[in-house]
Amino acid sequence: MAGKLLSIEGIDGCGKSTHARLLSQWLRSKGYETVVTDEPTGGPIGRIIKQALRGKLKLPVAAEALLFAADRMQHVAEVIKPALDAGKVVITERYTYSSLAYQSARGLPMPWVEAINRGAMKPDLTIIIDVPVEVALTRMRRSRKLDKFESDPELQRRVRANYLRLARQKGLRVVNGSRAIEEVQAEIRRIVDAALGPRPPTCLSAPRTAGS
Amino acid sequence: MAGKLLSIEGIDGCGKSTHARLLSQWLRSKGYETVVTDEPTGGPIGRIIKQALRGKLKLPVAAEALLFAADRMQHVAEVIKPALDAGKVVITERYTYSSLAYQSARGLPMPWVEAINRGAMKPDLTIIIDVPVEVALTRMRRSRKLDKFESDPELQRRVRANYLRLARQKGLRVVNGSRAIEEVQAEIRRIVDAALGPRPPTCLSAPRTAGS
Repeated sequence: MAGKLLSIEGIDGCGKSTHARLLSQWLRSKGYETVVTDEPTGGPIGRIIKQALRGKLKLPVAAEALLFAADRMQHVAEVIKPALDAGKVVITERYTYSSLAYQSARGLPMPWVEAINRGAMKPDLTIIIDVPVEVALTRMRRSRKLDKFESDPELQRRVRANYLRLARQKGLRVVNGSRAIEEVQAEIRRIVDAALGPRPPTCLSAPRTAGS
Repeated sequence: MAGKLLSIEGIDGCGKSTHARLLSQWLRSKGYETVVTDEPTGGPIGRIIKQALRGKLKLPVAAEALLFAADRMQHVAEVIKPALDAGKVVITERYTYSSLAYQSARGLPMPWVEAINRGAMKPDLTIIIDVPVEVALTRMRRSRKLDKFESDPELQRRVRANYLRLARQKGLRVVNGSRAIEEVQAEIRRIVDAALGPRPPTCLSAPRTAGS
């Protein structure tokens, strides 16, 4: 059995980690094997990206975008594809739409960001957790030191607008993440349940009666 | 004064390093300030590429191509652009045409490799040193341990064919590198001299005489 690739997207602080974890727990309780993973990865390319995000390495924005794409190819080859081949449900916090939303908010043309990411495996389902920037910033400041993307509200506003535009263009699911965790998670579970549900029989409609 | 970017290209073992060094010496003797540099760089992205070339890190070929492009953007930002802005002649061993020739020889579509490298500064002059694969291999084996690209004659044959095709398509200069070093270098100097020479006056043609 081939697995499924679910990507959870949204601006920094929208709740991706929390909801990925809760979704995985629920899927496991229903008998699925799951893998929760995220980008940038902890591999050698991801570590360079993280240095840049922490301001420890200066990179041209185009180089940064190319590194995110390279890290993703490596992520697919090393983590995602083997898990899917083993029939698992892979939940990734961030995937290609993060590059589209963030790198174009950083001034790169979106068609170029799409071009460099061509070849990355398509997710079976993408859910965007949408929250206003102020809500996300307040949440994050309570729990951690912010990196250069996280601490830039103007960037986050452009990223959020990009996500919402991508959702309209590509038919991605958007969940209102400002509500209580339980409500948000319940909606995510309904969406995932529908996406994973057993394939319906080829023909569900009643046989036509003669003369109809 | 803006400087000039010269890229020296060719299969592994064709003589790029030797000729870049000799060219730089000659240009300095003529009063130019020069910078000799190469790709992959010694920076953090270049170091990952070198690990992959030495077989110490497994990367999908597309990730490798993206890393070469990212390393190049960083190379331009940190080394090439500042030197050009200071009026220097920059001689780089390998640049964008290396990616086109090698990565497409490794199975990637050339238009995609061109797309991911869009945005890299164009060189003012590209010289391909062309030698048969057997000549290059014999030279290299005398002097060093070969990496995974260098030690693959079939790959080198495809790369050489790509370089020659690119030369025809893009009007790049090809120098026969099988001859004595002095002869090859003399031809390279003639080509570079013509490319760097003072701009001709706007109108060199004789004024038309009445009735002609």
